[in-house]
Amino acid sequence: MKLLHTADWHIGRTLNGYSLLKEQKYAFQQILKIALEEHVDGIVIAGDIYDRAVPNVDAVTALNEMFKEINIDNHLPIYAISGNHDGAKRLNYGRDWLAYTDFHLNTLVEEAFTPIETSEAQIFMLPYFDPMDVRAYYRQNGMSEEDAKSIHSITDAMNLVLKDIQAKFDPAKKHILITHFAVTPNKDTKLELTSETSSTVGGLATLTADQFKMFDYVMMGHIHTRFASPSETIRYSGSPVKFNVKEARLKNKGKGVDIVEISANKITHTFKEIKPQTDLIVLQEDWDTLIDPVFYKKQPLEKAWFAITVKNFDRSKHINVRAQLQQIYGTVVELDYENIYQDKQVETTKNISDLSPDATVDQFFHSITGNELSATQKQIVDKIFVDLGREK
Amino acid sequence: MKLLHTADWHIGRTLNGYSLLKEQKYAFQQILKIALEEHVDGIVIAGDIYDRAVPNVDAVTALNEMFKEINIDNHLPIYAISGNHDGAKRLNYGRDWLAYTDFHLNTLVEEAFTPIETSEAQIFMLPYFDPMDVRAYYRQNGMSEEDAKSIHSITDAMNLVLKDIQAKFDPAKKHILITHFAVTPNKDTKLELTSETSSTVGGLATLTADQFKMFDYVMMGHIHTRFASPSETIRYSGSPVKFNVKEARLKNKGKGVDIVEISANKITHTFKEIKPQTDLIVLQEDWDTLIDPVFYKKQPLEKAWFAITVKNFDRSKHINVRAQLQQIYGTVVELDYENIYQDKQVETTKNISDLSPDATVDQFFHSITGNELSATQKQIVDKIFVDLGREK
Repeated sequence: MKLLHTADWHIGRTLNGYSLLKEQKYAFQQILKIALEEHVDGIVIAGDIYDRAVPNVDAVTALNEMFKEINIDNHLPIYAISGNHDGAKRLNYGRDWLAYTDFHLNTLVEEAFTPIETSEAQIFMLPYFDPMDVRAYYRQNGMSEEDAKSIHSITDAMNLVLKDIQAKFDPAKKHILITHFAVTPNKDTKLELTSETSSTVGGLATLTADQFKMFDYVMMGHIHTRFASPSETIRYSGSPVKFNVKEARLKNKGKGVDIVEISANKITHTFKEIKPQTDLIVLQEDWDTLIDPVFYKKQPLEKAWFAITVKNFDRSKHINVRAQLQQIYGTVVELDYENIYQDKQVETTKNISDLSPDATVDQFFHSITGNELSATQKQIVDKIFVDLGREK
Repeated sequence: MKLLHTADWHIGRTLNGYSLLKEQKYAFQQILKIALEEHVDGIVIAGDIYDRAVPNVDAVTALNEMFKEINIDNHLPIYAISGNHDGAKRLNYGRDWLAYTDFHLNTLVEEAFTPIETSEAQIFMLPYFDPMDVRAYYRQNGMSEEDAKSIHSITDAMNLVLKDIQAKFDPAKKHILITHFAVTPNKDTKLELTSETSSTVGGLATLTADQFKMFDYVMMGHIHTRFASPSETIRYSGSPVKFNVKEARLKNKGKGVDIVEISANKITHTFKEIKPQTDLIVLQEDWDTLIDPVFYKKQPLEKAWFAITVKNFDRSKHINVRAQLQQIYGTVVELDYENIYQDKQVETTKNISDLSPDATVDQFFHSITGNELSATQKQIVDKIFVDLGREK
């Protein structure tokens, strides 16, 4: 059995106000081409299909068209789950009709316990959930209120769900999981985990690889780079498109999909690259360099999007900086200045979904007051989030 | 062939802030029961399925469940179109999968020209459209820009569309149309049509019955009462639920569905009643009567919703009027006063979707200023709407 593993399409997303839909459609066509060339038995989309719970109508229309091309026009099965960005109940609409053409869609916890059975594997599809969803599910299925209340963290909830999934294992088959969470190799990971409640990546508490050891292979979404995969068998495919400037700055930044081959003996994954139509290029140069034809004529002008930091810049001496740069470079999606008088780059707002709750408060406080939180204030914020975690 | 004709479900609608979803689900169960008892070959839903283009998640979940009960659990075909309240493109999501189980859904003009073929009939499904949609469709299909621009009114657009539908007629079969517009018996109708641009019912320009004479039978949505049906063969089923107090005040107000029997010789329709779970009762009484146990104990207290007008009322002599009435009657969805000092009922805001554009302006002006538009002002408003119509 051969599956194409992709995730985090985030249809409907914008980059600083610029629609990414054209870029996403271009990436989609490559995904479909790879799927057909590789003769895969299905396409796995591991969550964050849409960028938001209520996507705009262009996003809805575009996604419908993509699903149709895969599943109806090319008769390829789809294995899709919802991520934290999707509206689980809203995305669930039509699920029973999709199943008629082997379009398997899970958006609710209760749907995860019935695997898709193939001759060699059981494919369990576990959508993103909040510990509250898991509590509600077990309450509805006979758990006492006291026991349900003991489900505090995402780790508690996941262990419970995975135990019940494991109870459905057919020992004669491989066990595959599709899910959407932040999973790190172990507790002492580079992602700077300090305590369970504040350990977050992409806004979600993280889980560790050992929790998933009962599976032969795990296909995940949530983290947008495949280089964050916690092990050889617990994998992120990464998003097919670069979504922000931070990603464009990364050293390991190639986008693509995995082809996963499942046989009785082994499971292998092979990366297939997806090329951008409009690349996102980061420039950090002095003003004189940026407006020098010798420099800018080497750039893929009008064919890429540019994120520009003007170095050693005295802004008071220039007007219409953005307009001048756009005239040369075309689309400038982000423009920063490194002031000549301050040896510190002007900080741009970070994507909130990439921040932990306490870092979000830090940033909010800074952007409103211009000051940093004091040590005492930080302690108060920390305590509030710990208490909030407990209430769950 | 036997079809159940319903329309205007408006899932997600509220009555002065009170959700109608429970009532709509109750009506739905009766519709399904009638369909099964009558052994119909399908259920026609003639538009305004949702109440708004972006329905809330409860509405989406409820509608999905209803569709599932009809089409998947009971294997009954569905013939559904979008109305002016539905978001045509958004509702289109999943259409190709629905078709596999004979769930026929049209939301775009271009989908209307391919009928559903049965052994005895051709069923054309024409969703609500704006003249602009029709212009765009014909432009994309080779019409010159000049000709497309000559499509001004809804009448122009409809005549063009119906001509092309008629070109698909199989003379050996009956020709059925499902659509969603305001259609009156003729130009001199009681609906007070003055000119083509200002003739509106339910916010839409009206069409006349003679435009549809090529069809053997027309099943319509848009007008919420079946008593507005323009002829014996051009029918409104009405909505299954009362949506406002005005409807509760109507003399002819029974809600239900039509069972339409189509044979080679004739087409008949039979009305089947739907009962409310929580009725909407209109009371217009003096205060002393309203709070008199002899009077109110005759009312279906706590089992109905009440719209109450307190007659001959001196509001300055009473406090907590709403609270007192709610304690007696339960849910009071609307409360008006007929002041003892003014021999005129305090006017409540009319549902904007029931008003023509100029009446909407009238009402807005009145509610802001307390005055009526002068004759000159009315002329200006009228001219603006005529000009707007021309621009299309």
